[in-house]
Amino acid sequence: MTNTLVIQGTLLNDLRTDIIIKDNTISAVGQQLAVPQGAEIIDGCNTAVFPTFANMHSHAPMVLLRGVGDDTPLDLWLNNHIWPRERRLDDEAIYWGTRLACIEMIKSGTTAFNDMYFRLPAMAQAVADSGIRAQLGLNLFGNADELDTFDPQPHPLVSYSVAPHAVYTVNEHGLRRATLFAQSHNTAFHIHLSETQKEVSDCLAEHGCRPAEWLDRLGVLAALGPKIIAAHSLHLADDEVQLLGNHGCTVVHNPNSNLKLGSGHRFLMAELSQAGANVTLGTDGCASSNNLCMLEAAKTAALLQKGWRNDPTAAPAALVMEMASRHGFAALGLKAGRVEAGWLADLMLVDLGNLAFVPNHNTLSNLLYAAHSDAISTVVCNGRVVMRNRQVEGEAEVVAQARRCASRLMG
Amino acid sequence: MTNTLVIQGTLLNDLRTDIIIKDNTISAVGQQLAVPQGAEIIDGCNTAVFPTFANMHSHAPMVLLRGVGDDTPLDLWLNNHIWPRERRLDDEAIYWGTRLACIEMIKSGTTAFNDMYFRLPAMAQAVADSGIRAQLGLNLFGNADELDTFDPQPHPLVSYSVAPHAVYTVNEHGLRRATLFAQSHNTAFHIHLSETQKEVSDCLAEHGCRPAEWLDRLGVLAALGPKIIAAHSLHLADDEVQLLGNHGCTVVHNPNSNLKLGSGHRFLMAELSQAGANVTLGTDGCASSNNLCMLEAAKTAALLQKGWRNDPTAAPAALVMEMASRHGFAALGLKAGRVEAGWLADLMLVDLGNLAFVPNHNTLSNLLYAAHSDAISTVVCNGRVVMRNRQVEGEAEVVAQARRCASRLMG
Repeated sequence: MTNTLVIQGTLLNDLRTDIIIKDNTISAVGQQLAVPQGAEIIDGCNTAVFPTFANMHSHAPMVLLRGVGDDTPLDLWLNNHIWPRERRLDDEAIYWGTRLACIEMIKSGTTAFNDMYFRLPAMAQAVADSGIRAQLGLNLFGNADELDTFDPQPHPLVSYSVAPHAVYTVNEHGLRRATLFAQSHNTAFHIHLSETQKEVSDCLAEHGCRPAEWLDRLGVLAALGPKIIAAHSLHLADDEVQLLGNHGCTVVHNPNSNLKLGSGHRFLMAELSQAGANVTLGTDGCASSNNLCMLEAAKTAALLQKGWRNDPTAAPAALVMEMASRHGFAALGLKAGRVEAGWLADLMLVDLGNLAFVPNHNTLSNLLYAAHSDAISTVVCNGRVVMRNRQVEGEAEVVAQARRCASRLMG
Repeated sequence: MTNTLVIQGTLLNDLRTDIIIKDNTISAVGQQLAVPQGAEIIDGCNTAVFPTFANMHSHAPMVLLRGVGDDTPLDLWLNNHIWPRERRLDDEAIYWGTRLACIEMIKSGTTAFNDMYFRLPAMAQAVADSGIRAQLGLNLFGNADELDTFDPQPHPLVSYSVAPHAVYTVNEHGLRRATLFAQSHNTAFHIHLSETQKEVSDCLAEHGCRPAEWLDRLGVLAALGPKIIAAHSLHLADDEVQLLGNHGCTVVHNPNSNLKLGSGHRFLMAELSQAGANVTLGTDGCASSNNLCMLEAAKTAALLQKGWRNDPTAAPAALVMEMASRHGFAALGLKAGRVEAGWLADLMLVDLGNLAFVPNHNTLSNLLYAAHSDAISTVVCNGRVVMRNRQVEGEAEVVAQARRCASRLMG
């Protein structure tokens, strides 16, 4: 039986529009469409519709460590605050942490995320119970021995990837092994790449080349190309920009995390795009960036480009919103990120009664530059309503359980 | 008759606390205080209390031009988009624009703002009708002839200042005249100072010195010292940092506006503070920064310092929140910005049920780094509740009138 959802009278490109969704796909978009029999109707009056976001770099369960050790130097933060707590994360904490992260993402308009962590079965169950999409990357270290027992169980909205932590934590053998695994299982390869200047200088000292050059020398770029998702990629030499571009890699800019940890701020957005890379956006984990709001990440990304380039025309709103949405979905192999017939029904309604839209000379600009996520009222993922008028099913229980697990971690 | 307000059981520094407010002042802060007879009681259960914000640089009525001409080069933005519309602003538009700006500020926790614009009587009436505080600066150009007819009418929560636009738009005569006016009327002197690199090079070409040096040479710094409020001050030479510090000037950092207009990003926060300047924060007008949210301005300020200095310990949360609050109030001559007996009752309750506070290992960090303004539930200004559970009196009418006026501007 086909499930039909009709959104009536929402604003799309300044036109009052109806949207018909059949199962998980947008089947029609237009003015005053006939309502199919038995369809569920959502009143889109006084809203505008936008594609949802794809958060392309996160560590979802770390939401349980939000705000722990803020404003401290990086090594102290990791050694004294984060790692001792992370070691205590059991399946229960991972499950409720991921549930909480999913609710936070839904409430800020995100319906897909690309994660990197461990205890993936518990995460997958949480994602499944949340009704949104995720690609879960198994974090690898050293020789990548974690792959010995990696046997991902399929689930409709969940896919998997290998996620070697970084070139300084995974050795040559581990990187080669991860590459072979990704090739044979046809998965993505998600890695922190050139996040800090120290990573670059350490790589130069150890291997005589920079991190992206190192991946190239090991044959990772040639073997995996567009299956590579490189998080951060802040400190790139010109030839590395070309390498990532020529191989069609996806690059994830996480501006709030980069600023907060003092990692850098001159992300080469235009250069990477021009070279052929797929530029996307992410929040990083909540321990470093403190929230999972992609709208905020997109705003910071837009402002930061204009700021460090001294150019108010850099990173215009429409482009940045595409990076936050369609570019990310594409990297996940999903045809989502546009409100058009034939595309997946991942979309959100924005409340035009929110003060950010008063007055409303430019809806897109108001969403990106003026609004916060509380303006997002309703979210649809894969044709299913996952938030309605800011209400997400099960929120109270998830909050209570996540609080309990978080206390346990700190205790 | 004394008005008494009691906030019961809110969290202050992690302790469940009662706050007693008599008239416009906090009279007691402590655990399980006796409730005075006839007091109005606010249930602070599941909230935390913080001082409100002072927005130290704004052009309130420009909220009517939110999002107009975004992502365009500065000169085009001013000449084609902003100035032609600004010329159409009459008293009615100024009034409703200011009312709208005040509601937006209240909803994001701001109870005082330091503005620079024109048609001040209409603005003052709007501020008075909104119940928050403002210092309204009369914008001056050229010879500062606007002072001929400047006869500010006093109002309990409104004060006035002279606001020469900048050293490149007000000539030597005008700057001297504004200084004399500020001295004789004991008002603040609010000016855009060193906002762009072009302002600096033009000043060097015209006067042979940089903007702050020019104000020093004209005797403005010596005459007015702490009465000077310098907005932006992004491009300062070392001696200018010392000049502004030695004279105890207030400096206003507007990070979102600076980034969005591509003006610069290396604000010398620590250097200015150390030199003796009073460092505060602002949003700038909504045409450039798009919203009036001081919580967002504070977050961007904190992240940006860590980012460009590559130092995660720069601009720690507690310091930035003081800049956003107490430092600003101090510049306005107000003893506000602390929740302590004897201080003005300008404070806000934050809803700890908001996801930004789940889990809540660090309330201040969660407010600054994770929350958006929708977490602010109740706001008190001068002892009066101006927002209760996100409801501000008169919002619907103000929104309707502001929309009407904004349409007129564009038409």
